[in-house]
Amino acid sequence: MTNSVVQVEKTLNPKMKPAFDQLSFGTVFTDHMFTMEYTEEQGWHDPKIVPYEPILLDPAAMVFHYGQTVFEGLKAYVTEDEEVLLFRPEENMKRLNRSNDRLCIPAFDEELALSGLRKLIQVDKDWIPNIEGTSLYIRPFIFATQPYLGVAPSKTYRFMIILSPVGAYYKEGINPVKIAVESEFVRAVTGGTGSAKTAGNYAGAMKAQEVAEAKGYSQVLWLDGKEHRYIEEVGAMNVFFKLNGEVVTPELNGSILEGITRKSVIELLQHWDIPITERKISMEELYEAYQSGKLEEAFGTGTAAVISPIGELYWNDKKITINNGEIGELAQRVYDTMTGIQTGRTEDPFGWRMTVDIDTAVAPSHN
Amino acid sequence: MTNSVVQVEKTLNPKMKPAFDQLSFGTVFTDHMFTMEYTEEQGWHDPKIVPYEPILLDPAAMVFHYGQTVFEGLKAYVTEDEEVLLFRPEENMKRLNRSNDRLCIPAFDEELALSGLRKLIQVDKDWIPNIEGTSLYIRPFIFATQPYLGVAPSKTYRFMIILSPVGAYYKEGINPVKIAVESEFVRAVTGGTGSAKTAGNYAGAMKAQEVAEAKGYSQVLWLDGKEHRYIEEVGAMNVFFKLNGEVVTPELNGSILEGITRKSVIELLQHWDIPITERKISMEELYEAYQSGKLEEAFGTGTAAVISPIGELYWNDKKITINNGEIGELAQRVYDTMTGIQTGRTEDPFGWRMTVDIDTAVAPSHN
Ligand SMILES: Cc1ncc(COP(=O)(O)O)c(C=O)c1O
Ligand SMILES: Cc1ncc(COP(=O)(O)O)c(C=O)c1O
Repeated sequence: MTNSVVQVEKTLNPKMKPAFDQLSFGTVFTDHMFTMEYTEEQGWHDPKIVPYEPILLDPAAMVFHYGQTVFEGLKAYVTEDEEVLLFRPEENMKRLNRSNDRLCIPAFDEELALSGLRKLIQVDKDWIPNIEGTSLYIRPFIFATQPYLGVAPSKTYRFMIILSPVGAYYKEGINPVKIAVESEFVRAVTGGTGSAKTAGNYAGAMKAQEVAEAKGYSQVLWLDGKEHRYIEEVGAMNVFFKLNGEVVTPELNGSILEGITRKSVIELLQHWDIPITERKISMEELYEAYQSGKLEEAFGTGTAAVISPIGELYWNDKKITINNGEIGELAQRVYDTMTGIQTGRTEDPFGWRMTVDIDTAVAPSHN
Repeated sequence: MTNSVVQVEKTLNPKMKPAFDQLSFGTVFTDHMFTMEYTEEQGWHDPKIVPYEPILLDPAAMVFHYGQTVFEGLKAYVTEDEEVLLFRPEENMKRLNRSNDRLCIPAFDEELALSGLRKLIQVDKDWIPNIEGTSLYIRPFIFATQPYLGVAPSKTYRFMIILSPVGAYYKEGINPVKIAVESEFVRAVTGGTGSAKTAGNYAGAMKAQEVAEAKGYSQVLWLDGKEHRYIEEVGAMNVFFKLNGEVVTPELNGSILEGITRKSVIELLQHWDIPITERKISMEELYEAYQSGKLEEAFGTGTAAVISPIGELYWNDKKITINNGEIGELAQRVYDTMTGIQTGRTEDPFGWRMTVDIDTAVAPSHN
């Protein structure tokens, strides 16, 4: 599939761009968006870039009722040389199709979607902020559109990509966060939808988050849904612990989201010859490591914050302080290297970057 | 709160009504809908009845991304004397607010919503089908509308009620269905969202349903998410078993939806002095009862189908045939009584019915 199948209709009313040194996260959107439709007869069709505009949906559209929806999150960065970089975007498209499979949504052509994304970025290239810590957040998402009140997969869907210039995800930057270990609510369980990036997982997680925030914690650490023993994720991030020189992250078990940052950090640690193990790890084990002075570092990994060090865990009335509440050496090194590769400051021995050709003139085309 | 706070704007383009003897389920909608908005400053406000029309939403509206949404389902019936009856609608409004609580959606005034619903039915009263087995299906739902890409409760919401004249939910009518016991996928787990009526639960359930249908089963029987042992629900219905003269239904445990039909059937059985117990029941126990000839009947309960007898269960390569695949005496009696009360054919010793006053003239009003 070539770029040329994606039609472009440019806006006649470009918006004011926000000040790039005052960006928050996910509140401002660019001038255009990518859309594509699915019907049983035509499959995925009509990929195009159009002015950013409201969606018109029947009140019976199934997304409102039965929640068939999947999404992704990735970022584009502009380098000092004005190159535009994506970080492993093909991994996001693959994961989106894996999520589709779990949610009974028909698979799309990943090449085509990537080419649509590149074209969208070309069209809105002036929206990519160029200040340290900023980026263009990219949100591909798919939702059910058939107007039908019956629990069954929808017969029609829409695929969209919207773009948002963003500042740092946490106002505190890479400062360590305090995390409450969740022992009542459950994010996901084996056999459920935890390994898919679907709206319902996030809706279900808000209550625990609200309770934790009221107690002064910024996120929750999720335990497994069966025994409430094994560590799964932290907020909407995967989690890593450094225990006595060895790095451990919970193994993929069907209820954890397979993070692309997680995967990259594992590969980076292997590249550095730092021992990294994917395995089950229980809160008991973590607490024992803490007591015996072996819990050296803890950090979350995810597209939004990249690396988010954990300074304190609160579990069963016990406070676990990690690295004196300060950023660990490893977390800092991983953060610097990951953001260095993402923004083009550091070389990319892994071939993780994809350059978006922004010099290609994007002429408006019409159907 | 009185009816008069709900403004009414009538449609200028009434639609063609469908033939009431050829209705399917959830595909046709009436001329009007109820809407109400929530903002932090004003709370829930602007309740009104307007022509049925598409919803206009920002692509970043949180419902598409983080799935904060809840819904209800209930029915209105017209009696032979042209009275319009609702079945325990206050229970649906209560449950909707319980779902809201789990999903971090602000509570609404149940009285006001009920009064809005009654007014909506008055306006669209000619859409209530009057043929045996038909009814007006009522779908209240609430969803997050704030355009924001961050995992946190939305600051704005919309509450809507739409109406759909429906025929029988199952084409087979009250004929017994074949059910596959699900041993891989999980609908809900303690600490999750199973006891809330929220979109994500239904999206997550479709995969199992699809697999079961491919094998010739019409629904799945869900087991608990921790041990895959205890029976929870059947499809989107609660489930009852008659074992050696005693009726058993799984106890509410936080992952089962608290069905209003379930609650009513329990009260009905108690009224009839038929032993009914809410307790844990495992598949092993059920299978043993079957083998020793004690499994007399099984049926699902829910608003859509009211009572749906189970003729066969398929579990671990074993077929469990119930009552020779025929409708049981108890299921039939419960069905007749429930639908009798709902449609006004039978007296209502429980006070479950609410009459909608359809003689009140509904004059259009303007803000
Ligand atoms: C639940 C959850 N876990 C982990 C992650 C991290 O995944 P990634 O590194 O691909 O952003 C995300 C997404 O950001 C997530 O939503
Ligand atoms: C998951 C689930 N279980 C059970 C039921 C039955 O509830 P009710 O009897 O209130 O319709 C429903 C709703 O219809 C449901 O969605």
